[in-house]
Amino acid sequence: MTDYIIDLRSDTVSKPTAEMRQAMFEAVVGDDVYGEDPTVNALEQKAAKLFEKEAGLFVPSGTMGNLLACMVHCHRRGTEAIVGDLSHVYLYEQGGAAHIGGIQLATLPNKEDGTFCLEALRRKVRLVDDHEPITALVIVENTHNICGGKVIPLEWIDKLVALLNNNKELQPDGKRIALHMDGARIFNAATALQVPVARIARDFDSVNFCLSKGLSAPVGSILVGSKTFIRQARRLRKALGGGMRQAGILAAAGIVALDTIVPLLQNDHQKTQRIAEAIFSMESPNVTVDLTNVHSNILLIRLTNPKYGANEFSQRCAKVTAEELAVRVCTPVKGEGISLKVSSRDWHVARIVLYQQITDADVVLAIKKFKFVICEIDDALKE
Amino acid sequence: MTDYIIDLRSDTVSKPTAEMRQAMFEAVVGDDVYGEDPTVNALEQKAAKLFEKEAGLFVPSGTMGNLLACMVHCHRRGTEAIVGDLSHVYLYEQGGAAHIGGIQLATLPNKEDGTFCLEALRRKVRLVDDHEPITALVIVENTHNICGGKVIPLEWIDKLVALLNNNKELQPDGKRIALHMDGARIFNAATALQVPVARIARDFDSVNFCLSKGLSAPVGSILVGSKTFIRQARRLRKALGGGMRQAGILAAAGIVALDTIVPLLQNDHQKTQRIAEAIFSMESPNVTVDLTNVHSNILLIRLTNPKYGANEFSQRCAKVTAEELAVRVCTPVKGEGISLKVSSRDWHVARIVLYQQITDADVVLAIKKFKFVICEIDDALKE
Amino acid sequence: MTDYIIDLRSDTVSKPTAEMRQAMFEAVVGDDVYGEDPTVNALEQKAAKLFEKEAGLFVPSGTMGNLLACMVHCHRRGTEAIVGDLSHVYLYEQGGAAHIGGIQLATLPNKEDGTFCLEALRRKVRLVDDHEPITALVIVENTHNICGGKVIPLEWIDKLVALLNNNKELQPDGKRIALHMDGARIFNAATALQVPVARIARDFDSVNFCLSKGLSAPVGSILVGSKTFIRQARRLRKALGGGMRQAGILAAAGIVALDTIVPLLQNDHQKTQRIAEAIFSMESPNVTVDLTNVHSNILLIRLTNPKYGANEFSQRCAKVTAEELAVRVCTPVKGEGISLKVSSRDWHVARIVLYQQITDADVVLAIKKFKFVICEIDDALKE
Amino acid sequence: MTDYIIDLRSDTVSKPTAEMRQAMFEAVVGDDVYGEDPTVNALEQKAAKLFEKEAGLFVPSGTMGNLLACMVHCHRRGTEAIVGDLSHVYLYEQGGAAHIGGIQLATLPNKEDGTFCLEALRRKVRLVDDHEPITALVIVENTHNICGGKVIPLEWIDKLVALLNNNKELQPDGKRIALHMDGARIFNAATALQVPVARIARDFDSVNFCLSKGLSAPVGSILVGSKTFIRQARRLRKALGGGMRQAGILAAAGIVALDTIVPLLQNDHQKTQRIAEAIFSMESPNVTVDLTNVHSNILLIRLTNPKYGANEFSQRCAKVTAEELAVRVCTPVKGEGISLKVSSRDWHVARIVLYQQITDADVVLAIKKFKFVICEIDDALKE
Repeated sequence: MTDYIIDLRSDTVSKPTAEMRQAMFEAVVGDDVYGEDPTVNALEQKAAKLFEKEAGLFVPSGTMGNLLACMVHCHRRGTEAIVGDLSHVYLYEQGGAAHIGGIQLATLPNKEDGTFCLEALRRKVRLVDDHEPITALVIVENTHNICGGKVIPLEWIDKLVALLNNNKELQPDGKRIALHMDGARIFNAATALQVPVARIARDFDSVNFCLSKGLSAPVGSILVGSKTFIRQARRLRKALGGGMRQAGILAAAGIVALDTIVPLLQNDHQKTQRIAEAIFSMESPNVTVDLTNVHSNILLIRLTNPKYGANEFSQRCAKVTAEELAVRVCTPVKGEGISLKVSSRDWHVARIVLYQQITDADVVLAIKKFKFVICEIDDALKE
Repeated sequence: MTDYIIDLRSDTVSKPTAEMRQAMFEAVVGDDVYGEDPTVNALEQKAAKLFEKEAGLFVPSGTMGNLLACMVHCHRRGTEAIVGDLSHVYLYEQGGAAHIGGIQLATLPNKEDGTFCLEALRRKVRLVDDHEPITALVIVENTHNICGGKVIPLEWIDKLVALLNNNKELQPDGKRIALHMDGARIFNAATALQVPVARIARDFDSVNFCLSKGLSAPVGSILVGSKTFIRQARRLRKALGGGMRQAGILAAAGIVALDTIVPLLQNDHQKTQRIAEAIFSMESPNVTVDLTNVHSNILLIRLTNPKYGANEFSQRCAKVTAEELAVRVCTPVKGEGISLKVSSRDWHVARIVLYQQITDADVVLAIKKFKFVICEIDDALKE
Repeated sequence: MTDYIIDLRSDTVSKPTAEMRQAMFEAVVGDDVYGEDPTVNALEQKAAKLFEKEAGLFVPSGTMGNLLACMVHCHRRGTEAIVGDLSHVYLYEQGGAAHIGGIQLATLPNKEDGTFCLEALRRKVRLVDDHEPITALVIVENTHNICGGKVIPLEWIDKLVALLNNNKELQPDGKRIALHMDGARIFNAATALQVPVARIARDFDSVNFCLSKGLSAPVGSILVGSKTFIRQARRLRKALGGGMRQAGILAAAGIVALDTIVPLLQNDHQKTQRIAEAIFSMESPNVTVDLTNVHSNILLIRLTNPKYGANEFSQRCAKVTAEELAVRVCTPVKGEGISLKVSSRDWHVARIVLYQQITDADVVLAIKKFKFVICEIDDALKE
Repeated sequence: MTDYIIDLRSDTVSKPTAEMRQAMFEAVVGDDVYGEDPTVNALEQKAAKLFEKEAGLFVPSGTMGNLLACMVHCHRRGTEAIVGDLSHVYLYEQGGAAHIGGIQLATLPNKEDGTFCLEALRRKVRLVDDHEPITALVIVENTHNICGGKVIPLEWIDKLVALLNNNKELQPDGKRIALHMDGARIFNAATALQVPVARIARDFDSVNFCLSKGLSAPVGSILVGSKTFIRQARRLRKALGGGMRQAGILAAAGIVALDTIVPLLQNDHQKTQRIAEAIFSMESPNVTVDLTNVHSNILLIRLTNPKYGANEFSQRCAKVTAEELAVRVCTPVKGEGISLKVSSRDWHVARIVLYQQITDADVVLAIKKFKFVICEIDDALKE
């Protein structure tokens, strides 16, 4: 018998909904490289309006959106962007800012909540000396992926903005350093905070958000900002090879995502919370979660015993054993074994991510499986 | 009344067919960044097989495909790629090889047939001196867009390959300089030559071809080459931001394009030929075509009178006048005026490109309109 | 009356000695771009021999030497180099690794002794994932400038080398990650350790050292490494514009520096120690030094009172007041006021650097001045 | 017996004069990275004044000067510079504009006189389209090395300037495209034209000239331009590693070069002319010069017979045979054989370059040798 697989590795594996498929089927398209795809144009305008920015740009990936933001904001030779040392831009975009854009990334240590120290930021900014790169950009990731889907507090954002706005010594040409938000999952942040995305993005010069993660669209991200910013990004998108022709097919799904999936994101957060509570309630000495800090659709599962790491945990979750089938850790009707796909990026932390296609029933099964596995681990390590 | 628009600016404006829409609707998808999209995998393998190469890579645009080829082949610092001075890579990809890849493009003058002088190539290659960039790549465009859809002769390709294969002084490390084909429209070349694309691509280390031009798919190009080459290109695609998630939606249309549109490309060539003949037969002193050199789906219309340039011509073709309606230059049933969209890149050459959605009836209308306009021009310039 | 200035900002302000001027006057020169300058060749060979490496390369600056090392070792696209977050490469070379070389710099926090945590290094290395840059280089700065001229312990170096040599998971292609030493002041390290520079450099693939700092030559640094490495660096030096013609003029001074100044570096360390002791002995609550950690020719002076920062301190040291003249803080014979140039890079740390031209008499004067100033500060802050 | 070598490969092999050595010996120096080297400052100001520009910058090489000019003028991402296809920037600077600066070089065919077609330039400029790089710079080389030391006519320069100044369609932002002169040998041009360099440079935004070629200084070039331009170039010089410490040593020689060698350049032109006339007068069918087009200190010697190329010619000139010694082709007193070093960059052209250290007596010897060799070749090829 095949196993029943629940893929919790990432919300990037989410698949387009039936409504999206229908919208793609019917999409009116044109050549977007000529600016003539009405569906792309509609999506870009819809996004701009949602974020209360002047313009939007559809790009094939969040990596391209962030890279374009770096390239436009850091247009001057010899500049640097300040980012968190656990940020996606720094860790998982192949060093593209440096490689492709010639921009140094200067890192500040990310705190557990996804923020960084503002006093450290103030001292990190470099604007004058001939030996130093010029700081031209600060990037905030929200929600913060590696920190476990943390929602960046609005208060912290406002303090960051105030710091950059109000300090002359941080504005050598009388212009504030640019602020970009890697908002790959900004709709999760807005959902958690119960504020519009425009509030979160209010003081940022640009924001990139993804349609293809929790929003379930198949492909694409959107960069929003001023008209000038987007015009420059549009031009550079061409250089990177991100200009697509009848991209309206994809944009159609994006529009559906904004209309139909965004209002449901709260469900993903609740499902994440339920799994977190289930694991927490076991009071395992080996496998724990920080229950008070589950913010959105990402859950970090900590493997606190050095004898049993995250890779082992994720391999175990994916496997189905005779023992667990014997005690009915399986689907209720067909009796299929439950294989959980969990990602493990580090020695002591596994990560799961929830999204639309993970049903309430799946959550029940996942909890059943996690409980069995954790008991098994606790037993084994007790000896 | 609205006009009846026939868009001959480029085959990039072609739209997905009903069959493609159905395939996209039904596509089985996965996360291609994880290599798990079965439809993308199927398309990449199908393309590799067609070209008799080891592997393929789906990319959002031809520009990205060519850029990746440059970046992989010219991986060493301080290298250059030799290209024709009318090539797309040199003219219309925003200098990305230099800007993004740090690669100098060294140009050879393109001949009218899209080739360049092989003796000039031999002398252009630079391999030893400390002051000079190292030539690491030669790129051939086929069919050649700006030269008017010219099919590069197989004999010339074979001579080029022999030159690079057989001359030790062109192979300092005992390795042939890499050969890449910008085969955006290579299926048009294969159709014209009545050979498989694999024959044309036989001696090239990599080929990029587009699904979104004459093949009518909405988005995407495919790069084919050795496994090693594709592995490196796949990695760099991520850096450029070309990694897409459920790209199987687009790949599904690509598969249909290869299966259903490629066999029909001959029609586009015939339609192009018919328009060429119609213009040629007018024997206009002001508007001519080189009838013996129409190879594929692109037709260059030469404006030979310095008093009347290509921009004027293209503006005139797009306009509908009372005079032409008076003599029934219009659609037969509804009597709509015919607006032809023609591209004009230069002072003395206009360009039209044919593709599936331009029907035989459209061709009749286009000829009618061209004839009227040319007569009008001839009359005006006679005075 | 003009003041007597003692410039302690940096050893880069050291001037060529009379012997160097004579050597430059008599230097036999040729065109080094053709490899025909005998004096440059002699210096490069002398340096290679000293470091027990195969070859050497004369470059106009330490910044170019480090940049070339980064570019050669990180020749592959999408790589990163791991450096300390207080390293010169990261802080004071304008982000050239990223800007010019397209290389991401990944920082580890420098400890006070100029090293970084080796366990953190192990976890920082990235070799496999498609989303991540590939770690291709680790750079160690020795002595460590910003950490206050710290000599990197040989034991730590040996552990670093062992870590990279002995761990298969840090060597994906069976090759150790490259090691470069920014040895701008490596002769100071060797002097302090009383070992040859070759011992310090033993396991490094390349080392850059400066002739123009404590070694007092007017211009230039030397990069040493394997023949293959130097051949590539020599080629890229040309691309950066670092190829100089009759550079033997400068190389002649470099040879004298190695022969005559290196044996005297111990004096600079002693002078630094004397100043450190003098300041330390004052037991000022506001201005202190870490006496047990003065390693070479750099002294960090800590301004521990938030009311009085390093900029104020350095401005005060440069000034001459009537009060200090009144108590004979001046040169003994002419009675000139003593102006000390001190560098202040930070809010709470000032830095002085000693070199050949600062005589013992200068040290006496500097101590006299520092004592007066520190008393003055202590008095003022007491109130 | 050793041969008497006359090195005519390039004026880069010229060596510093006694006066330069004296000036270097006595030079007052400081740390130029801090802007404190009085001799460098004096040279930069002297150069700026000579060229009637606001500021100057001393750089280690002409390659760096040109690269900095490209990087500053083409500061925007996705730009190109138009250069001649025989220019030094394009051919012999390792593609640094692309590699280091990310700038595409667009070439126009150089005419024999070192200029290019201005109508072709007009059509080459690209300013608007989203697919194209933006033309930001035009570079003129004067005198033109590969074209044989050709002096660019002032009339042509004025027409070039007028073209760019007066055509709105070439100035999209109302600003003229930047003009840079690679004036490595601009003093030779000024000497030939009998005008000040300031006249030649008048309408150029920047000029780079070399102190180390015909001007005989050991090392260095100077870039002149506006204060803003030089400030940016100075900053980027640091990034490239071109910041040197006590560079006044070299600058001292540069000042002597401007004062004492520039007035003598006419001699080099006369010597070149004498050799040209001697070769021309032989009326050889195999080895010729274009006597009416010898402009400065470079002479192209054409090997017109495909059976005997430039490499053979240069090897023969370097060799001394018993036959030539037998007929007294040797130095008059010591009877040493004459070895002429000649450069051969191409199959049919050899190049010689004259400079201060080639005396009138050397010219007599060189002519004697050339005559013997040419006779020998003519005899051999007659058979």
